[in-house]
Amino acid sequence: MRKPKLLMTPGPTPLPPEVITAMSQQIIHHRTKEFAEIFSRVNENLKKVFQTKNNVLTFAASGTGAMEASAVNFFSEGDTVLVVSVGVFGDRFINICKTFGLNVIEKKYPHGEAANIDEIIDILENDKSNIKGVFITHNETSTGVTNPIEKLARYLKDKDKILIVDAVSSLGAIDLKTDEWGVDVVVTGSQKALMSPPGLAFVSVSDKAWEFYKTSKLRKFYWDFKKYQDNLLKESQDTPFTPAVTLIRAVDVGLKLLLDYGLENNFKRHTRLAKLTQLAVDKLNLELLPKKEYSSAVITAIKAPEGIDIEKVRKIMNQKYDIMVAGGQANLKGKIIRIGHMGYVDEFDLLKTIQCFELSLLECGYKNFEVGEPTKAILQEIAKEVV
Amino acid sequence: MRKPKLLMTPGPTPLPPEVITAMSQQIIHHRTKEFAEIFSRVNENLKKVFQTKNNVLTFAASGTGAMEASAVNFFSEGDTVLVVSVGVFGDRFINICKTFGLNVIEKKYPHGEAANIDEIIDILENDKSNIKGVFITHNETSTGVTNPIEKLARYLKDKDKILIVDAVSSLGAIDLKTDEWGVDVVVTGSQKALMSPPGLAFVSVSDKAWEFYKTSKLRKFYWDFKKYQDNLLKESQDTPFTPAVTLIRAVDVGLKLLLDYGLENNFKRHTRLAKLTQLAVDKLNLELLPKKEYSSAVITAIKAPEGIDIEKVRKIMNQKYDIMVAGGQANLKGKIIRIGHMGYVDEFDLLKTIQCFELSLLECGYKNFEVGEPTKAILQEIAKEVV
Repeated sequence: MRKPKLLMTPGPTPLPPEVITAMSQQIIHHRTKEFAEIFSRVNENLKKVFQTKNNVLTFAASGTGAMEASAVNFFSEGDTVLVVSVGVFGDRFINICKTFGLNVIEKKYPHGEAANIDEIIDILENDKSNIKGVFITHNETSTGVTNPIEKLARYLKDKDKILIVDAVSSLGAIDLKTDEWGVDVVVTGSQKALMSPPGLAFVSVSDKAWEFYKTSKLRKFYWDFKKYQDNLLKESQDTPFTPAVTLIRAVDVGLKLLLDYGLENNFKRHTRLAKLTQLAVDKLNLELLPKKEYSSAVITAIKAPEGIDIEKVRKIMNQKYDIMVAGGQANLKGKIIRIGHMGYVDEFDLLKTIQCFELSLLECGYKNFEVGEPTKAILQEIAKEVV
Repeated sequence: MRKPKLLMTPGPTPLPPEVITAMSQQIIHHRTKEFAEIFSRVNENLKKVFQTKNNVLTFAASGTGAMEASAVNFFSEGDTVLVVSVGVFGDRFINICKTFGLNVIEKKYPHGEAANIDEIIDILENDKSNIKGVFITHNETSTGVTNPIEKLARYLKDKDKILIVDAVSSLGAIDLKTDEWGVDVVVTGSQKALMSPPGLAFVSVSDKAWEFYKTSKLRKFYWDFKKYQDNLLKESQDTPFTPAVTLIRAVDVGLKLLLDYGLENNFKRHTRLAKLTQLAVDKLNLELLPKKEYSSAVITAIKAPEGIDIEKVRKIMNQKYDIMVAGGQANLKGKIIRIGHMGYVDEFDLLKTIQCFELSLLECGYKNFEVGEPTKAILQEIAKEVV
């Protein structure tokens, strides 16, 4: 009598029934007019979600593949890059860049803090090592922090450096005006705000970044952006290598649902889900890991209460109530719990999650709250809109 | 960004994913070993749910079809029957019996009341008109009342009269010990506690009822119970007419899920859902239509608050929150709202329903409660089990 697992994680996120149905079809061949029609629509809709006039390249890969691709397409061994890290995914950019022989200047912030953009601009202003690119995470899921990247993008716009943004967990849910702000390379994945299964990665590339591509000497075959770009410039758009046809069918529907709902509406919706979660955290007498001003719209990182086995809380939520939330990664393991509210997740999914969080905390011995009050606070907030 | 409709109605009830998957298959022929295997398993499992050693007959029909069948198989024109009615579905038995020329003694109770079994036994004791059968509704969904039929069944066990029970909305969710209590004919449908789509009806027939069958002169072809019984006695069980193959696949899975969960557990689960609903009704300062002692375990009928357009409340729940509950039928239209908690519905579905009920009542101007308190009361009740 169990219900399907509800994924309140930082991805994969739940699939709308229309997306599931789109995948319940016989495979079609990818060198056909039928596929080209779907793929062209996907490409047009991706531009809207990326808020760019440039082509968006589609890879059969997870987000990390596209992160790697965004390093190997623009630089050469020994090039200096600045990598800003506020958590696990910032650190991943550092690892990738080092792996390919780039000279990495690391700018790390303590877990739970956002990047200080003024400080980063200061580093760039005083740079003597010819930094050619800046890598930054838009939304760091490991700490529940969103970096304020607009100012950095605008600063870099007329510089001879490119800005590469990991927007895997943010794009479509948190505003990112690629062209207007001047973000050169934006990377995202299918399994977050696009409400599709994992397996596709997407990258937008600015004109400035294409200039960098021309001089890049790092070796690439599968990740070679030009191959993908050329196939998008053909009359019948396709991919250089076999695409993940079923996933492209899925994201076609996911994108349509998202755009029908409206990008702006979706940004507001996620911000609201975050505010409601924060309200519950207050009523639970728990603390956010980040400051509220940087706390993410798509994932809320909450400090484990003193003396409570938060991994056990998570296990109960999963095994008894069939709700998956995330724990802490790396040095935050056992210290935080992270509730995702990303993609096809609504207020009532959140209410259910908070209810199960309450019951699971209680079962693990945390009693510093009144059962039902966190839920009630959310419902009263929602009620403000109906009266 | 809408969620699938949640049916908190007195049926159809939500389908478990396993049931949906079972139907997503190519059709198989019904005169095959493959079908016989499925159908035999369904028949064995139906006996367990009916709590009977007798065969259970399966019809491609809705519940009403089997109600009609249970009249035409046992009686002849002019036979006297006693029909007990506490609502719309009791009245339906009256209509059916009259349609086929039976002499109907009607024993009606006001809407919201349960049948008084002592009173009925009294009628039978003082009967001068040779009552051959008694029809009664086990669970009357129109008023949210469950009739205490056990005493009536035990009384009739050694009498030359048969008891026919409409258990369409109760079987599998509310205890009904067919053989032990001595219920001769039990009728149910696929779309309630069996967690399957509508379209199948099931009837169990006692040895005593088969004796009545022999003398029955009412005309029947499709409903002729003997035809179905004969096909169940064959080595390779099937149906006399083309069965609804896909629905039988579905109910095969629904029955398996129900029996894996356990009948007793399922009775307890439904009783608990009803208690939690009643708790919310209290906190909403609303009233049940029936007395608590007769209030159904599968559906809760709630009186509309004075001056509130309860049909509008229902419409908001449906259109804004995608939760379907039922309104009043016949003379109760506009006077009550009915929340089903039947089949594949859990505490968190109920919590969501109550939350949306709160919000919708508020939007319609009902303010005689504190938003979030009904939900909180339910959650606190659930919390008692975890600490």
